[in-house]
Amino acid sequence: MIKVTLPDGSVREYAKGSTAMDVAKSISEGLARKVLAANINGEVWDTSRPINDDATLKLLTWDDTDGKSTFWHSSAHLMAEAVQDKFPGAKFWVGPAIDKGFYYDIDLGDTKMSEEDLVHLEKKMGELSRQNNLFVRKAMPKAEAIQYFEEKGDEYKLDLLSNLTDGEISFYTQGSFTDLCRGPHIPHTGFIKAIKLTSIAGAYWKGNEKNKQLTRIYGVTFPNQKELDEYVLMLEEAKKRDHRKLGKELSIFTMDDDVGQGLPLWMPNGTIIIEELEKLAKETESAAGYKRVVTPHIAKESMYLTSGHLPYYADSMFPPMELDGTKYYLKAMNCPHHHKIFDAEPKTYKDLPYRIAEYGTCYRYEQSGELFGLMRVRCLHMNDAHIYCSKEQFASEFRAVNDMYIKYFKIFGVDKYVMRLSLHDPAKLGLKYVNEPELWQETETMVRQVLIESNIPYIEVQDEAAFYGPKIDVQIWSAIGREFTLATNQVDFNSGNTFKLSYITQNNSTDVPLIIHRAPLGTHERFIGFLLEHYAGKFPAWLAPLQVKILPISDKFMDYANTILQTLKNADIRVEIDDRHEKIGKKIRDAEMAKVPYMLVIGEKEMNERQVAVRLQGRGDAGVKDLDKFTRELAAEIKERRGPNEDEPAKN
Amino acid sequence: MIKVTLPDGSVREYAKGSTAMDVAKSISEGLARKVLAANINGEVWDTSRPINDDATLKLLTWDDTDGKSTFWHSSAHLMAEAVQDKFPGAKFWVGPAIDKGFYYDIDLGDTKMSEEDLVHLEKKMGELSRQNNLFVRKAMPKAEAIQYFEEKGDEYKLDLLSNLTDGEISFYTQGSFTDLCRGPHIPHTGFIKAIKLTSIAGAYWKGNEKNKQLTRIYGVTFPNQKELDEYVLMLEEAKKRDHRKLGKELSIFTMDDDVGQGLPLWMPNGTIIIEELEKLAKETESAAGYKRVVTPHIAKESMYLTSGHLPYYADSMFPPMELDGTKYYLKAMNCPHHHKIFDAEPKTYKDLPYRIAEYGTCYRYEQSGELFGLMRVRCLHMNDAHIYCSKEQFASEFRAVNDMYIKYFKIFGVDKYVMRLSLHDPAKLGLKYVNEPELWQETETMVRQVLIESNIPYIEVQDEAAFYGPKIDVQIWSAIGREFTLATNQVDFNSGNTFKLSYITQNNSTDVPLIIHRAPLGTHERFIGFLLEHYAGKFPAWLAPLQVKILPISDKFMDYANTILQTLKNADIRVEIDDRHEKIGKKIRDAEMAKVPYMLVIGEKEMNERQVAVRLQGRGDAGVKDLDKFTRELAAEIKERRGPNEDEPAKN
Repeated sequence: MIKVTLPDGSVREYAKGSTAMDVAKSISEGLARKVLAANINGEVWDTSRPINDDATLKLLTWDDTDGKSTFWHSSAHLMAEAVQDKFPGAKFWVGPAIDKGFYYDIDLGDTKMSEEDLVHLEKKMGELSRQNNLFVRKAMPKAEAIQYFEEKGDEYKLDLLSNLTDGEISFYTQGSFTDLCRGPHIPHTGFIKAIKLTSIAGAYWKGNEKNKQLTRIYGVTFPNQKELDEYVLMLEEAKKRDHRKLGKELSIFTMDDDVGQGLPLWMPNGTIIIEELEKLAKETESAAGYKRVVTPHIAKESMYLTSGHLPYYADSMFPPMELDGTKYYLKAMNCPHHHKIFDAEPKTYKDLPYRIAEYGTCYRYEQSGELFGLMRVRCLHMNDAHIYCSKEQFASEFRAVNDMYIKYFKIFGVDKYVMRLSLHDPAKLGLKYVNEPELWQETETMVRQVLIESNIPYIEVQDEAAFYGPKIDVQIWSAIGREFTLATNQVDFNSGNTFKLSYITQNNSTDVPLIIHRAPLGTHERFIGFLLEHYAGKFPAWLAPLQVKILPISDKFMDYANTILQTLKNADIRVEIDDRHEKIGKKIRDAEMAKVPYMLVIGEKEMNERQVAVRLQGRGDAGVKDLDKFTRELAAEIKERRGPNEDEPAKN
Repeated sequence: MIKVTLPDGSVREYAKGSTAMDVAKSISEGLARKVLAANINGEVWDTSRPINDDATLKLLTWDDTDGKSTFWHSSAHLMAEAVQDKFPGAKFWVGPAIDKGFYYDIDLGDTKMSEEDLVHLEKKMGELSRQNNLFVRKAMPKAEAIQYFEEKGDEYKLDLLSNLTDGEISFYTQGSFTDLCRGPHIPHTGFIKAIKLTSIAGAYWKGNEKNKQLTRIYGVTFPNQKELDEYVLMLEEAKKRDHRKLGKELSIFTMDDDVGQGLPLWMPNGTIIIEELEKLAKETESAAGYKRVVTPHIAKESMYLTSGHLPYYADSMFPPMELDGTKYYLKAMNCPHHHKIFDAEPKTYKDLPYRIAEYGTCYRYEQSGELFGLMRVRCLHMNDAHIYCSKEQFASEFRAVNDMYIKYFKIFGVDKYVMRLSLHDPAKLGLKYVNEPELWQETETMVRQVLIESNIPYIEVQDEAAFYGPKIDVQIWSAIGREFTLATNQVDFNSGNTFKLSYITQNNSTDVPLIIHRAPLGTHERFIGFLLEHYAGKFPAWLAPLQVKILPISDKFMDYANTILQTLKNADIRVEIDDRHEKIGKKIRDAEMAKVPYMLVIGEKEMNERQVAVRLQGRGDAGVKDLDKFTRELAAEIKERRGPNEDEPAKN
């Protein structure tokens, strides 16, 4: 008998050689029908693989990241089977699961695939899945495997084999398709109930442009049709909400060849959003006891040698400028400059926590192929701050930072988020991680404790901490369910030493401060890109570049339109008059297109009674209101940063 | 007889060979006693030099820049005479007038001069001046001059002579001192009534460190003792108000070796001032119809080739960074980026004037020896904006910009200012100036007209315009009478063409916009440096980093102190409590030192009656006030950006 420890800590006994599926069935038949794979002692296994020793076991379903990726990898095999059926002689390179779905790189010889072929393949995959073919694993000696592919004349798999060790080689077969594969796979093809092949692309073998170009087919599958339908809808919506498209339509930002790639220029409308975000950050940070600083965008090489960014991070920095025999670098992060401000005057425990914030602009080198709209840029306006504190102050400071994140999520209607806590690996102390075992232990425990106490959804990831301490990556989902990595929140018990920072303690000794790096709103670039998608460009009034458009029905009402304009301006509301000689229908349509949250239609009645006929963007007529009441209400909505209607979330 | 035309246009007749002094005497004896030199047909002449042809003539006195510089150049000769008396064998290189005073570079052989020698020289100069020795000009053939200095063994003057053309060589003698000199000089030494030798420095011959080091003596002189006394007082006051000293004492900014020279880091106190200035600028510009933009700090080489900054301005720019085979430069000015934003979307006459503003940070290379505190830096946060307009709109736009300057001067209590209008030289069209004779004519006339109509004090300077149009340099004087060049206001009718900017006119044709470059608040660096001196660090409440310090007499009053703190914070007032266990006298002294505008002393009586005992920085007790009344009044003072007392200017 072997002992199997389940995630809840319970231990069950099974016959030696039992499988994860046996364990699942012993718990419930319903569970067994959902199990895709299992995590055995930290490795993901087929549910059919015999377990011969005591083990910890976690059954993986569609709800687990590893469950999903096993599902998608098996879907790649299913697609390969369909391709093999349609294009006999096709040779297969690799077919991994990706972030959302899977692909397979295939050598089709001289054949060109068409969009129609995709439809055919989808249909065939459906047929094959309904056959409920098992994924069968078979270990094979290397020599035998080589012989198999030599006979088949498959240079791709032979290439893969050349890098594998004898004894670790396995094949998987489902239906009529057999592939060299490490696995694992789902139990059978019947799980794959909804299939969408999304695109065809060319991909050089091994990513090298000197090699042959293979055909890459992308797809995504689901365990039911409903999820696929939702996903397709989300993709369509994401296309409509593409931040590059909206950014241009709404005059948010522009790019220019003479300025350079990845260097957005913020137009007046985008700058209003930037300034509203900075205002929010400044208010929030000021209330939380932060002070603001302003630092240059460059520093000497010596700064980055001290910080350790050079030479290790050099590839991600802009190349140096040689000045007076010294190298100067554009800053890729604000921390070193902030450390220098901390250090400019002696500090005592009374000065701590010392919190300094800056919307610092950093420059990072990204490969030109990696650049993407506002999402991947070379110029980053960061909502940055550094908190210098004692160990005793750490937990409450870290909690306050997390609270600030949550506060922002609420303001922006971000309902779904998760914090990803990256921890160190004790085996790599002194190598990948600064050699301070106790500080690692202490701070990781404190951070975890804060997350638990604050009831924040989080996951833990081993061996992904920063060099100088544990970190939290914050992931958020837009209104249409797309995931974004927003920002990080990092503990740093190393820079205090490298920059020789210190403070006088209450006992008149000196100590090195702990440092928290934090950037809840990330960068303007990524955050505004996110907001464009999240709001579909329909910003709540406080963020909207233009908050109100006054639409006089005819020139007769221009005087009154100007009265309204002045009344709203006096309340610091961003407002314009559409004074064109156009029909009111056209004026409304144009204001709708420009996504102005409030439109005020002005005619005889409104003028005579000092009223405004209010239209809400995308939601039509909202009735006639007294001008002063409307002004007061809108000013309050803006001040409180509310959506246009509290009952209705702003994200439709 | 010759005809002499005076500045008022009147023409007088004089005998051929008459001198400027003859003319002065013919007008009034009083005037003749004040005349130092004369401008004859655009050249500055001795008053004793015969005029042989018809001429325009302007008599120059101490009130004229050229009068002053003649006075100081003659003072350099007077000093040389004293040096020759004290150090026989001294050899003289050059002795020019400078911005404020004069210097002479002298080879004293092995002799070292001391501060005591300066006192002696001053005294001797006084004696010599009282001799009323005439400055006598004598033309001399080159050969004769060379012979004179060869006999004297003066290699310095021989070196000067080698670059002079025969027929242009003159000598000046006063008393026992004769010098090779182009002149002009004042009539006699008696004009020099007040003398101060300010410092001794080493100076390499011809500025080359491989050459011998000469002794440079700096001095300044005046036509009366009163002006000298005022000047010395101003220097002492300027020393106390040195922005580097105050900047450190008040924690405004810091410099750091690892960041680099000329790259200030703005500490929290400095950042508050920056943000108040930006807030002022944003409010002012928003009311004036400006929109804001945000642009990157770098651009590709091609941008600056288009703008013409490369290669001509390359020496003033940071060296390039090589990225993906392209050169990127840190921007030294914001205009090209702004032009790109203008150009990002098609424009029509309805979009004009298009005004875009940015506190853009530019980087300029200055020699490390030129760097000076905040006054000469390599990183400049500019209060920049560009106005794109039609010719018809130009005058009113330019006037609006000037009005904005005046508005700012009023806010900051700048009573003395002058605008220096730099014009083109028609002879250099197509060379130093873009070849658009009509546009030069038109815009210069418009600019002059605006200055005259706005009643702004201004002077005109020939041949100092920018390449692309006339410009105005704004000079202001601090509260202690020191002069600062603040900012420029430039017309640009060239960049529109080079950047291919255009708009659709009302007639449906296309036209190129005129551009106004303007920066009324200059850079944060220079302006805050100026303000530190101007206010002696005693900022008016709206600018003060800390506006109120609450000084409880003992711990018993801490609760009430916190009530006050919260009350003031709610009114957005920057306030702190001095909660140290110190005597009230010490607390007051420290708050005075920190130049906090308002101190609130809190004791039993104040607590019981919800009052505050107000002290004004530098002016002592201001009586007891009701807390809410004080809060209201201070909030209003801050909002209106008033000084602490309207009746009393803030500049003492």
